[in-house]
Amino acid sequence: MTTKFDVAGIGNAIVDVLAFAPDATISGHGLTKGAMMLVDEMRSRELYELMGQTTACSGGSVANSLAGLASLGAKTAFIGKVRADQLGQIFTHDMHAVGTSFTTQPLEIGPATASCLIYVTPDAQRTMATYIGACSHVSETDIDEDIIAASAITYIEGYLWDMDTAKAAIRKAIRVAHDAKQRIAFTLSDTFCVDRHRAEFIELIANEVDILFANESEIKSLFQTDHLQTALTRAQGMCANNQCDIVAVTRGEKGSIVLTDGSMEELPTEAVQNVVDTTGAGDLYAAGFLFGMSRGWKLAACAQLGNRCAGEIITQLGARSMKPLHTLVA
Amino acid sequence: MTTKFDVAGIGNAIVDVLAFAPDATISGHGLTKGAMMLVDEMRSRELYELMGQTTACSGGSVANSLAGLASLGAKTAFIGKVRADQLGQIFTHDMHAVGTSFTTQPLEIGPATASCLIYVTPDAQRTMATYIGACSHVSETDIDEDIIAASAITYIEGYLWDMDTAKAAIRKAIRVAHDAKQRIAFTLSDTFCVDRHRAEFIELIANEVDILFANESEIKSLFQTDHLQTALTRAQGMCANNQCDIVAVTRGEKGSIVLTDGSMEELPTEAVQNVVDTTGAGDLYAAGFLFGMSRGWKLAACAQLGNRCAGEIITQLGARSMKPLHTLVA
Repeated sequence: MTTKFDVAGIGNAIVDVLAFAPDATISGHGLTKGAMMLVDEMRSRELYELMGQTTACSGGSVANSLAGLASLGAKTAFIGKVRADQLGQIFTHDMHAVGTSFTTQPLEIGPATASCLIYVTPDAQRTMATYIGACSHVSETDIDEDIIAASAITYIEGYLWDMDTAKAAIRKAIRVAHDAKQRIAFTLSDTFCVDRHRAEFIELIANEVDILFANESEIKSLFQTDHLQTALTRAQGMCANNQCDIVAVTRGEKGSIVLTDGSMEELPTEAVQNVVDTTGAGDLYAAGFLFGMSRGWKLAACAQLGNRCAGEIITQLGARSMKPLHTLVA
Repeated sequence: MTTKFDVAGIGNAIVDVLAFAPDATISGHGLTKGAMMLVDEMRSRELYELMGQTTACSGGSVANSLAGLASLGAKTAFIGKVRADQLGQIFTHDMHAVGTSFTTQPLEIGPATASCLIYVTPDAQRTMATYIGACSHVSETDIDEDIIAASAITYIEGYLWDMDTAKAAIRKAIRVAHDAKQRIAFTLSDTFCVDRHRAEFIELIANEVDILFANESEIKSLFQTDHLQTALTRAQGMCANNQCDIVAVTRGEKGSIVLTDGSMEELPTEAVQNVVDTTGAGDLYAAGFLFGMSRGWKLAACAQLGNRCAGEIITQLGARSMKPLHTLVA
């Protein structure tokens, strides 16, 4: 069978609503700086009413990566759940606008399309409050087996573990992908998400994941250590035990580290002027990295493109590049 | 009666959907570069489907000015029509977020909240296709007489002339404002809008408008001349005949010109680095100018703040400043 897609992605289909805010807002609203907190519809409305002037952009972690991959020139397909409402139309448009296939049936009734309130503090860090809405309805029936089997890599976000129906969907997708001799990539998503699902994540990485993405905090949380080196050693141990092929750890302005069985490469990144908003930095790193993999590049080159894509998105507000990314492919 | 609001505004309540696009897109879609074209719902959908990655921000010409005024520190109230849908919620939120009073009853059924597709070309110029939606339902009953009577200035956009019910609403607002010894400000909005309503606009300016805003193209279109000097002379003639007190003409990077009976002041503006998107430049000029008037400043100072506000908004995508503007009030 011909591989039809470079990367399929399964993730939350979210529209981000961004506003600049002082640090006091984060603590004042009971949010944790830099983290993603799940909120119910009522709390989301309360928080939104208190927010300053906003801008709305499509979001969702894996969805952002897929949009980035498509903009780089990869063939991509996204699976995620919106409702057939105005935000759902915006999300769907923005996937199609970059050429990503997105055919998951939207909800006709039920909760609204997910929205994520994103507070961007003066240090350009982002803090998120997500109302998961229609995303909670993604299920096994949404997993298009033909798409998964036809994708060289299927990329999955840890955030999905917050919903029980999604877990069954993910298990199905993994089974289909591996039956078709394809690979699974996974992102740990968020430190607190790791905290909620640590045992399952470790089991998943050991048995199913081929390519793992994490930032420093997440990989430390996974292995419950305060020391990055300890976490990296543990991660590399998983590679050595054939539990995972590649672990890519992002480190903000320090670039990234790529681990495999027997190798550890540090890839520094160029300093970025005019950092506006770090939303999507990790997502776009994964986009660049997976694009390189789809082209058969060496891992160092994959990581370098990841660094460049992350460096680009943080000069903009929101996690979807308003300008095509293919110019970054040197 | 105490003046409760510095400025009330009546205008289209629109959510802007912005994307970068090459010049070829503008001509390819039958749009006119730099202009606003009205499109029906079906055409709006067709155009949206062809658009690249988008960002959504609240918009609407007078609404942008009111948001700017509020951000500068003025007391403002907006009258305009949304539907009670997700875009309507976004528009309403963004007015309230900057502290603008906005109490117009939203439509419960009928056309959706208005949206404006904005194409930003590489020269940062914007070209617009507007689906007017719920705005077409604004009517006399939406004009809150207490608000208009309590506002030192009522600001009205020329775009409203594209809807018959809105005209009656405007006439009522003007009557209420003048009965309360308050002033009327008006913007010509768009060259083609002037073309559609020239005779009515001239009559309106001659009999009702105290403060007129226009850009070079619009003022030339109003007086059907290719020569700016001719248009300025004609405009100043209207001031001399007591038909209008103040005419402020914006000139992009050349700043602005302010005319009154017997005076013509040219106010150059500082060069702006990193111009991203000129959407809202005229609207934010009006915001700065009217803020100065609300504080009793000399007209030159009003125009200078207008220039500064316009210079600020063109460094951002969209017409609503994501950062407070009050720091521009020196």
